[in-house]
Amino acid sequence: MKCRICGKNAQVHLRQHNLALCRDHFVERFEREVERAIRRHRMFDRNTPVLVAVSGGKDSLAAMRVLHRLGYNVSGLYIHLGIHEGVGYSDLSLQKVKKFQETHGLPVHILHLEQTFGYTIPALVHRRRQQVPCSQCGTVKRYWMNRYAVEHGFPVVVTGHNLDDEVATLLANNLRWDTGYLARQAPFLPSTHPRMAAKAKPFVYLSEKETALYALFQGIDYVRMECPFAEGAKSIFYKELLNRLEERSPGTKLRYYREFLRFREEVLSSHTHPGVELRTCTVCGMPTTLEVCAYCRLTSRVGTQV
Amino acid sequence: MKCRICGKNAQVHLRQHNLALCRDHFVERFEREVERAIRRHRMFDRNTPVLVAVSGGKDSLAAMRVLHRLGYNVSGLYIHLGIHEGVGYSDLSLQKVKKFQETHGLPVHILHLEQTFGYTIPALVHRRRQQVPCSQCGTVKRYWMNRYAVEHGFPVVVTGHNLDDEVATLLANNLRWDTGYLARQAPFLPSTHPRMAAKAKPFVYLSEKETALYALFQGIDYVRMECPFAEGAKSIFYKELLNRLEERSPGTKLRYYREFLRFREEVLSSHTHPGVELRTCTVCGMPTTLEVCAYCRLTSRVGTQV
Repeated sequence: MKCRICGKNAQVHLRQHNLALCRDHFVERFEREVERAIRRHRMFDRNTPVLVAVSGGKDSLAAMRVLHRLGYNVSGLYIHLGIHEGVGYSDLSLQKVKKFQETHGLPVHILHLEQTFGYTIPALVHRRRQQVPCSQCGTVKRYWMNRYAVEHGFPVVVTGHNLDDEVATLLANNLRWDTGYLARQAPFLPSTHPRMAAKAKPFVYLSEKETALYALFQGIDYVRMECPFAEGAKSIFYKELLNRLEERSPGTKLRYYREFLRFREEVLSSHTHPGVELRTCTVCGMPTTLEVCAYCRLTSRVGTQV
Repeated sequence: MKCRICGKNAQVHLRQHNLALCRDHFVERFEREVERAIRRHRMFDRNTPVLVAVSGGKDSLAAMRVLHRLGYNVSGLYIHLGIHEGVGYSDLSLQKVKKFQETHGLPVHILHLEQTFGYTIPALVHRRRQQVPCSQCGTVKRYWMNRYAVEHGFPVVVTGHNLDDEVATLLANNLRWDTGYLARQAPFLPSTHPRMAAKAKPFVYLSEKETALYALFQGIDYVRMECPFAEGAKSIFYKELLNRLEERSPGTKLRYYREFLRFREEVLSSHTHPGVELRTCTVCGMPTTLEVCAYCRLTSRVGTQV
């Protein structure tokens, strides 16, 4: 196969677009798609300090790299979860992040959950066995990501969620027809509270394969293992099913997601109230829909807060 | 396992309800669920002559049987599609229908597509290779089912679509977020044109397994083979995926469908116009959304109409 742009040997074939590209033109296209998503959803401009939620995986490191290359004002935040399972998952991830920081010269702040939250994720899971680890871990990570951004002058938090992540979440919300969750699933959520950073996902139109290739071509070394606590997670199962759909009809995921966004705009936004009124958590002062935020409800259940 | 009602040996286990039942209590429950669906959606009463679209398969024969047992005024219509492929699919189906008619003493009218439409389904498929057979066959069958009902005094057409059929269709519409198709997918569609029969699907809350068991327990002999033209159909592929979801989380299909109906009621019905204004086909006088109905457009493309 030849690159559709320059006719040289293609290194990438994107089945969903029936498009073969050489390495350089793949990278060029990838960066153009990121720029386009940022503009289309008015995520942020080049003057805005953005904080990328960095896990040590391909998506978040690729996000830092591409935003920097596109001239954005980017910093990272790595939250150390204290997961020593899986041959030291958290330490291994941190190593990759530090290596990235040295190689690419981009600042990454580090926050230890054990210090801020009082528990590592395994300690939390151990205390609250009845709940799914991913959901609790998500609550804690989102809380600290937002709080760090707000307290350190970052109006926007960027996450590396790719198309495969988004459609897996979409399918989960869709199977329950959860109007609230569907209405809030967007590439960009603006801030609606003084202590809330906007949330931006510039990779939502790019597949997992594309972000992995971009990371590879940019020489990014990343953690390849899944979090050991994610084993058997529903999201992984949904991704498998969606992969089967994509295999049979390339382009299914992108269409499912794009058409959802149109539907959301046309149908859901006119139906649901434009953004639930956010309140201020009476315990910690961060935004919440209830009187006490999900994070403070969790800490009050597990006890001790640092 | 014991029957939850009477404590005798259970013959059926409905995982989605975590319910074990003996044969008699399964039948009782099945019939109660059908009655409940008919009432909930105000489909028809015991005085209304209803026409069941009979294919020779388990669902449609079970539908005739259960409606009769519940005291409804029921007749069947079998449309002979002229499919000789698959060791004589259509003739085999007709045999099963005739046997059912004799055994259960219920009237089934028979219509030969070659006489009314001028083509058998294989002849049509042969002429219009570019299209998916199921979609064309559906247009022709729906047209004649409705026309026969209207011309013979049946205000309601009943089909045996079960939960598995409905969620497969729902998933297909859902992956495209097709607002129009989603808005029209309902257990009951009332008539909105003088030459349109209402469409009722009393099995939508019952799984394929349940209708098969009911048919078995009622001594119904039915065609077990799939239509030979349906091989590789997307709907079969979607059913497989949905079966995997159901296996992992029993009850997923029923929740997906029920929550969809709630969503449709709450969100879609207020958004979309309540029923597209139906027009009258300028060729045949039957209802249509365009100037000429889908059936007449098809016949004008393939030529000859009887």
